[in-house]
Amino acid sequence: MSVSEDEITQWFARQSKLSSVDFPIGIGDDMAEIRLADGTSVLITIDMLLDDVHFDLKKATLKQVGYKAMAVSLSDCAAMATAPVAAVVSVALPRGFGEKELKQLHSGIRLAGDKFNCALVGGDITSWKGKARLAITVAMLSRAEGCKPVKRSGAKVGDCICVTAALGGSGFGKHLEFEPRVKEAIKIAQMVTVNAMIDISDGLSSDLSRICRASNVGAVIDAEQIPISDEAKKGDNPLASALNEGEDFELLFTLSQKDCNKLLELWDWPITIRKIGEVTDSGKLQIKIPSGEVEDLKPGGYDHLVS
Amino acid sequence: MSVSEDEITQWFARQSKLSSVDFPIGIGDDMAEIRLADGTSVLITIDMLLDDVHFDLKKATLKQVGYKAMAVSLSDCAAMATAPVAAVVSVALPRGFGEKELKQLHSGIRLAGDKFNCALVGGDITSWKGKARLAITVAMLSRAEGCKPVKRSGAKVGDCICVTAALGGSGFGKHLEFEPRVKEAIKIAQMVTVNAMIDISDGLSSDLSRICRASNVGAVIDAEQIPISDEAKKGDNPLASALNEGEDFELLFTLSQKDCNKLLELWDWPITIRKIGEVTDSGKLQIKIPSGEVEDLKPGGYDHLVS
Repeated sequence: MSVSEDEITQWFARQSKLSSVDFPIGIGDDMAEIRLADGTSVLITIDMLLDDVHFDLKKATLKQVGYKAMAVSLSDCAAMATAPVAAVVSVALPRGFGEKELKQLHSGIRLAGDKFNCALVGGDITSWKGKARLAITVAMLSRAEGCKPVKRSGAKVGDCICVTAALGGSGFGKHLEFEPRVKEAIKIAQMVTVNAMIDISDGLSSDLSRICRASNVGAVIDAEQIPISDEAKKGDNPLASALNEGEDFELLFTLSQKDCNKLLELWDWPITIRKIGEVTDSGKLQIKIPSGEVEDLKPGGYDHLVS
Repeated sequence: MSVSEDEITQWFARQSKLSSVDFPIGIGDDMAEIRLADGTSVLITIDMLLDDVHFDLKKATLKQVGYKAMAVSLSDCAAMATAPVAAVVSVALPRGFGEKELKQLHSGIRLAGDKFNCALVGGDITSWKGKARLAITVAMLSRAEGCKPVKRSGAKVGDCICVTAALGGSGFGKHLEFEPRVKEAIKIAQMVTVNAMIDISDGLSSDLSRICRASNVGAVIDAEQIPISDEAKKGDNPLASALNEGEDFELLFTLSQKDCNKLLELWDWPITIRKIGEVTDSGKLQIKIPSGEVEDLKPGGYDHLVS
């Protein structure tokens, strides 16, 4: 079996030896944090999207592709409860792509950027030789917004585990036009103390296991409490879809029982928040099935190296 | 004829409407500058390198590819006379690439980063489906280092035009292992006032025309003063090679006659600096050939959209 993306990322993290003063958050979270001066730091994320992997140009418009490329990074900003500031975009064009196609991509990039106050400040255009597919990379900067950036590693035993909205079925179209939870994340982190947060990019089971590993804890989730999207409900196995499909880009976070009660009581925004489980000291990821039994849950989301 | 990369970049810049307070340097320079707080700003650049375009995996090692991907961005930091701070790297892997190949890439990335004090703080790994080639994107942050970032747009009529080291013939191997002029750029900008600067990525003629357009000036260069590399001298047309080949990654900059004299007198670092011409009010790019005649010079470097 080949090495997973998480394993190689951990290897890179071990090599990096970053000073925690200059780099308060290093390799392995949704964004890295770089301290520039006393009290001023900036966060950065990078993601490359590929035709036939993250989108399919036979079905998606270039405007949707530009939007999604930005939205994936905006969702990383949300995962840290930080405010987007600026983005740079790099594209590798297939033969035959020119001004028209670039302007279509640009319209999607700007649509997403304008919605979340994220300026497009630069970029790079290059073209493949021969037959090849579109690749688009976005690097995005964000900053703290009234609270410290929320890491994956702060989950505490006894915390409640919550998610926004509903999971699964993103492949039916939502993955191209999803709404990054930037405003929700900042609002939540300003209302209560969020101990750990991630955005669900590879699936609830995979991304919850990342919080558990980073925080050195276990977790148990209640199958009956997982909010399942209408799209996933139309499929053969709605629960598996919600657990493993990925590209939901919803927030997954943990907070104390007390803060959880407060949040659920006071939260009045349209995007729902649901408590789906608890952080445990088992060191394992577990799921309580409808019969009441608790079973081990394997991370079943998408891994770019082993899939 | 299709639109050039420069023309589409100018179109993007016109659409961007960035506040000059929050974004002192916007689209169209080597890096964009983002103000984060009073007196604290950060600069960012992004570049994607493709197999068979910017390197050839049949000839280059993955370590060289990792090194070059970082060095191209380090050269952008140099072009602004700024100090590299941190980088994030995104890779799209061809089928069959795994842990071993990633570690080879990583060794080149770290070699370049460590040399110029640029931390690797994050990244993203994805894999193509089907047959496809390696793509690698680096986004890099830098900061001002004892002087303001130097833009392309400050060249003044009467300025001297200078370049570092020697040009041409980079394709024989230097393009994979070149030394970004980070330290030289900062040293020069601390010694004298540099009015405009760029790194030569697409060729002297193309990159000088970019300074001229951004600064709204013309320029005349003296063919006999252009420093030509030993590799270019072995070819059929050394001057054309030095003018148009690109990937030299040397510094091209303008400064007042007085500052130029001071710099050339005091400069004692091993990398040579040569005065090659003057900024004019002709609005044209011109070259003085050995017979003494002055001819118009067309930008002949590489353009990813029209080549």
